[in-house]
Amino acid sequence: MYLPKHFSEDRPEILKQLIIENPLASLVTVFQGIPELNHIPMILSADGKFLQCHIPKANPLYEQLHQTESQQNQQALISFQGVDAYITPKWYPTKKENGKVVPTWNYAVVHIRGTIVLKDDRAWLCEHLHALTQQMEKTRDSDWQVSDAPQDYLDSMMNVLVGIEISIDSMAGKMKLSQNRLDKDRDAVMENLMQSKNKIDQHMSQFAKELKKNL
Amino acid sequence: MYLPKHFSEDRPEILKQLIIENPLASLVTVFQGIPELNHIPMILSADGKFLQCHIPKANPLYEQLHQTESQQNQQALISFQGVDAYITPKWYPTKKENGKVVPTWNYAVVHIRGTIVLKDDRAWLCEHLHALTQQMEKTRDSDWQVSDAPQDYLDSMMNVLVGIEISIDSMAGKMKLSQNRLDKDRDAVMENLMQSKNKIDQHMSQFAKELKKNL
Repeated sequence: MYLPKHFSEDRPEILKQLIIENPLASLVTVFQGIPELNHIPMILSADGKFLQCHIPKANPLYEQLHQTESQQNQQALISFQGVDAYITPKWYPTKKENGKVVPTWNYAVVHIRGTIVLKDDRAWLCEHLHALTQQMEKTRDSDWQVSDAPQDYLDSMMNVLVGIEISIDSMAGKMKLSQNRLDKDRDAVMENLMQSKNKIDQHMSQFAKELKKNL
Repeated sequence: MYLPKHFSEDRPEILKQLIIENPLASLVTVFQGIPELNHIPMILSADGKFLQCHIPKANPLYEQLHQTESQQNQQALISFQGVDAYITPKWYPTKKENGKVVPTWNYAVVHIRGTIVLKDDRAWLCEHLHALTQQMEKTRDSDWQVSDAPQDYLDSMMNVLVGIEISIDSMAGKMKLSQNRLDKDRDAVMENLMQSKNKIDQHMSQFAKELKKNL
């Protein structure tokens, strides 16, 4: 990922927050030279050193990881993506002054590189599903727990799943939020996004404001 | 990408709509065996056969594509991602009946595979920037045009950019929207997402409803 300094974000708490708020990861792997991408919800391990997730064994990735595991460690690239928005130059006060403006795109992402290990272990999988459920049910004001489902039903579900753990070898955040613009242009972007009818724009504006406040 | 039949979407107009509404692509390339991912806004060419975009020449991808181009065609995987949402099993009417429910994730994506060609050609770049701007400014109720900026300013901006064109060799849509659930569970998911305070959930609900209506 191209990462100019003014868009680089390395505060662990900000990166962690983006991962927790946008858990649907893009998991990129390479098999026989061909890139593969799967969309998989992931959580951070309690110690923050691993990403944890699960896939159905029917996912071709399972077989690919099995084959690769016997030869070498499988390297993965994981991307967590926050909201994004097209920024029209008409919003910049600078436009009225000299016209020297062009459109851009704002977005916020976290990239992680690490090594994948398959977790074909019922206890690990069970613990992972509890942790993932606990993190996510909170966001729905719900207290549903894995143990609320009948045990034989859970057993049949877990039979078709396999766990995946990825070591966090490196982590990079790119928060492209008009930091390269004059302050008045940047404020105008946030204001216009907030006034947009599009709900995702409003969300983007909130995020950009919070991040600026936290600096 | 793991793509069970019940989540597979191949209607070209639905796939095209998702790309137009979510233009910030994840571009995956492989360089010396290592996967790279860049987030780049893309548009479809007028004939629908290519994806078109641009990057700053400062992006390491430019140098990588240059190096690869001389040896072989660079294969790319491009992912366009719509909204997504965590689905709690407490929303399913089935939960009250037999408890046989577990959480899931809903999301909608389009994957494209193709060959990348660098477009180091000022006329191509200029035309592309006009087309991209035209598509996007509409979404901001704006009539700003590239030609509104001073020509010497535009020239200096274009000097640091390079165009990229990717042939659409294959295209796959995954619309994971609870189609594997009973109709009453699926409707309850859309209803609960619409009632969520989270703006992205409301957006997801709208999308799922429109897609069901279009079937």
